[in-house]
Amino acid sequence: MPKVTLAEKLAQFETHWDPHVVADYNDNDVMVVKFQGEFPFHSHAETDDFFLVLEGEMIMDVGETSTVVGPGELFIVPRGDVHRPRSEQECKVLLIEPKGVPNTGDPATAAAKPRI
Amino acid sequence: MPKVTLAEKLAQFETHWDPHVVADYNDNDVMVVKFQGEFPFHSHAETDDFFLVLEGEMIMDVGETSTVVGPGELFIVPRGDVHRPRSEQECKVLLIEPKGVPNTGDPATAAAKPRI
Repeated sequence: MPKVTLAEKLAQFETHWDPHVVADYNDNDVMVVKFQGEFPFHSHAETDDFFLVLEGEMIMDVGETSTVVGPGELFIVPRGDVHRPRSEQECKVLLIEPKGVPNTGDPATAAAKPRI
Repeated sequence: MPKVTLAEKLAQFETHWDPHVVADYNDNDVMVVKFQGEFPFHSHAETDDFFLVLEGEMIMDVGETSTVVGPGELFIVPRGDVHRPRSEQECKVLLIEPKGVPNTGDPATAAAKPRI
């Protein structure tokens, strides 16, 4: 079934920084994720990183620049840019990354990205 | 500025079936578009077609199957599938397609996809 209700998928897990794949778009994983706290600074040499805030508010730090991103706002980190998302309160995000890309920039510490 | 407020972009045009590019994600155009009425049936042999409803409701016809897609719902049409979106009332959508893909499946009738 190609329709995906994002809120239903987000209701299926509680964990933070734990992206879950909900659909495929060409060679990309389309994921939902919940952020709370600070993610480590990292970069992806080979790909842009797509974030769309669905609920709550995240702060995206890119180098020394911090941007508040709220619902209905998109933030695409250009490839190679060192960045970290963070959020004091829980924030729900749609994330798109090419398949096989480690979310931390490092396969040793990357999330599993289970499919739901 | 990598942050994009989708509602601000949608407020910049009134036309239907007229996707506007608001960001780049790797080799893809990230677009906002307003639907009202019926789009022609078409397919894209080389790419999936990504739709996320932001406001209103669209019906996606894929072959003889019709699916109602509302806000916060994603519909990704698999490559090659004949489809058309339609909507009685105006519907606002986030659309992702590889750069250079004609939105109608045919370069002769494709929208210009201006950048805003």
